[in-house]
Amino acid sequence: MEKPFVYADNAATTNVSDNALNTMLPYLKEQYGNPSSIYTLGMDAAKAVLNARRQVAEALGAARPSEIFFTSGGSEADNLAIKSAAEFGAKNGKRHIITTNIEHHAILHTCEYLENHGFEVTYLPADEDGIVSAEQVENAIREDTAIVSVMAINNEIGSILPIEEIGAVCRKKGVLFHTDAVQAIGHQHFDLKNMNIDMLSLSGHKFHSPKGVGALYVRTGTPLESLIHGGAQERGKRAGTENVAGIAAMGVAISDAVECIDERNIRLAKMRDRLIDGILSGIPYSRLNGGRERRSAGNVNISFRGIEGESLILALDIKGIAASSGSACTSGSIDPSHVLTAIGLNEELAKGSLRLTLGDGNTDEDIDYILEVLPETIKRLRSMSPMWQRICREEGIPDYTV
Amino acid sequence: MEKPFVYADNAATTNVSDNALNTMLPYLKEQYGNPSSIYTLGMDAAKAVLNARRQVAEALGAARPSEIFFTSGGSEADNLAIKSAAEFGAKNGKRHIITTNIEHHAILHTCEYLENHGFEVTYLPADEDGIVSAEQVENAIREDTAIVSVMAINNEIGSILPIEEIGAVCRKKGVLFHTDAVQAIGHQHFDLKNMNIDMLSLSGHKFHSPKGVGALYVRTGTPLESLIHGGAQERGKRAGTENVAGIAAMGVAISDAVECIDERNIRLAKMRDRLIDGILSGIPYSRLNGGRERRSAGNVNISFRGIEGESLILALDIKGIAASSGSACTSGSIDPSHVLTAIGLNEELAKGSLRLTLGDGNTDEDIDYILEVLPETIKRLRSMSPMWQRICREEGIPDYTV
Ligand SMILES: Cc1ncc(COP(=O)(O)O)c(C=O)c1O
Ligand SMILES: Cc1ncc(COP(=O)(O)O)c(C=O)c1O
Repeated sequence: MEKPFVYADNAATTNVSDNALNTMLPYLKEQYGNPSSIYTLGMDAAKAVLNARRQVAEALGAARPSEIFFTSGGSEADNLAIKSAAEFGAKNGKRHIITTNIEHHAILHTCEYLENHGFEVTYLPADEDGIVSAEQVENAIREDTAIVSVMAINNEIGSILPIEEIGAVCRKKGVLFHTDAVQAIGHQHFDLKNMNIDMLSLSGHKFHSPKGVGALYVRTGTPLESLIHGGAQERGKRAGTENVAGIAAMGVAISDAVECIDERNIRLAKMRDRLIDGILSGIPYSRLNGGRERRSAGNVNISFRGIEGESLILALDIKGIAASSGSACTSGSIDPSHVLTAIGLNEELAKGSLRLTLGDGNTDEDIDYILEVLPETIKRLRSMSPMWQRICREEGIPDYTV
Repeated sequence: MEKPFVYADNAATTNVSDNALNTMLPYLKEQYGNPSSIYTLGMDAAKAVLNARRQVAEALGAARPSEIFFTSGGSEADNLAIKSAAEFGAKNGKRHIITTNIEHHAILHTCEYLENHGFEVTYLPADEDGIVSAEQVENAIREDTAIVSVMAINNEIGSILPIEEIGAVCRKKGVLFHTDAVQAIGHQHFDLKNMNIDMLSLSGHKFHSPKGVGALYVRTGTPLESLIHGGAQERGKRAGTENVAGIAAMGVAISDAVECIDERNIRLAKMRDRLIDGILSGIPYSRLNGGRERRSAGNVNISFRGIEGESLILALDIKGIAASSGSACTSGSIDPSHVLTAIGLNEELAKGSLRLTLGDGNTDEDIDYILEVLPETIKRLRSMSPMWQRICREEGIPDYTV
């Protein structure tokens, strides 16, 4: 029998869809022109970029395609948004930034960089469900606030933040609002022309386009300073020969992603809930991280006492299950996740976390398989874990693994 | 008979080689893991990135693979190098930058940005062959010089700059030296561990890998500040999920490119010289831009009096010849090329320029075809050109087109 393979790490990355792949192939083969060239081969490439720009704009409900700036991914889009706002803010004496303590490192480390360059940053604390309220934002806004940046959906615990309300508060106060929506595309409806969002970051590989392509939406009228200076690409705001194949792929992938958000969410939420319930009831001393409400449809994040997350991931890998512990970008590091710490977990629970993120490719059989494998894996790891044995001893818990 | 197609714009971009395409495909299909993930699928992706890093390091003669930082292309690499040097320079009170007046916009516009942020930039003037000497650099270096950036090969006129000598001068004076070698890979040997180059930019799509991937070489010990902050990718110096497929493709493409530099240069130079001689002797009132010596093997850049470059490109396109006028990144703009202006051309000659850049795919038949089509095309365009007629009238030139 072939070893089963269950990919349950869709928040880390996704496979390229057939549709996206077939769209990009011609631009890797015969349609290799530079979009800046004015002969036919170049114009054809330029048309592919233009077409993708329309598709992304339409998928987001942007007022016009020219509001879309292609980047090399979510991190670049985040850096572009925050640093541009900082640049323009500084010109007007505004050197204050508001964000949250559960943002992705692409936001947090950019803010830290700016703190070393004369900016002050308010990191709003998320509650135990991973939510930051519009009220918190409103109270933090100052005269000198250059930008508010709050993510749409958290990448670790799947919390859905109230970005519409936060946007409304920012609009009322006349402050720029950016949202990192990298985890939200395909899971959340956007109709940007009718929302109070000035800038929005997205990353193609989270919704079945290739890695290395993303975009920043910038509402018409919002000033934008380049992060990458040079040629006149992207209306002079993002230099560099366009990743034509990747951009074309992202255009069709985002169209596909937004086509069936509601059906997808219903399907994923059903699998997610069965997974959460099955794990919590089948495995003692486990707890759900993040709330049940306002939770992204495909996100499961559970901590197990007495478990070392990395060992769990490797044990699941042997069983053919791809999952993560902490965010993809920080795995490999030994620090506990800043998100789990922010919502109140101690180091033990933060390090003993498992993130399973479901996507288009997952089936009910995948859930069955995880629910079959996980309890015995946890039991086996605990039976070998001095940490678990200490917990049992110190807290008087009967050790069910022996 | 099928319409011939001659691609003579290899300095703008190149097609993806079969080898590069076949290398990238698995990472677009089943090998879609995130290199930061610790399970098998992720590790396989990480191995592909590591392998490509080794290939790039080896192709450049870098001392170690960890000196290679993958980026989204040449422009990002240029921005990263210059802005990082500016950042570290400023910390030590060094706010002076030396570059040339024939650099790519990725360097020039980055320098202009820095001029608006308290830096002073010396733009060394190239001579009429497009060369800047080590002596010019030496004379311009000051106590407060943070970095010298001089390109290896100019993208418009193919001039080969004396970067080894310039590097030696910089090393002697203790100043950081960066070279934009985007046009040099596959045309020039690098053995970086034995050269006085601290940073070097390259871009994959100029040597048969896909658009949207490049690299910055950074000599061990050279400080580097991120341009894109966030996750821990690229040893914490370039955040963002890696473009695994593109990086893998670039690894094999650069290996292929450096394998036969001498043979390629001999072959291309022969075609180039036949093209230059054929055009200059076959078309009156044409002149070669840039020198004959120290010229990249595939570069032809010729100006025609009384010709509007854009019309010429479109006329050649109809005949199935892809060529450019001015650099790819600025085509679409109506300013005359800053490079041609820098080497002394007046506006008429700069705008009447044609750049033909030959590459691996070109054959002797391509040269025959261009030499057949170009004279009659120029003659026809001149016969319809009021500019040409005015020149004939004012300068007493007999109009050969009537
Ligand atoms: C000399 C030079 N530097 C930098 C670049 C920018 O490279 P990319 O468009 O891949 O960002 C180019 C490309 O045209 C170039 O020719
Ligand atoms: C919320 C969030 N923001 C930003 C990013 C960065 O995206 P990329 O890795 O494509 O640069 C990620 C990816 O992990 C993410 O989940």
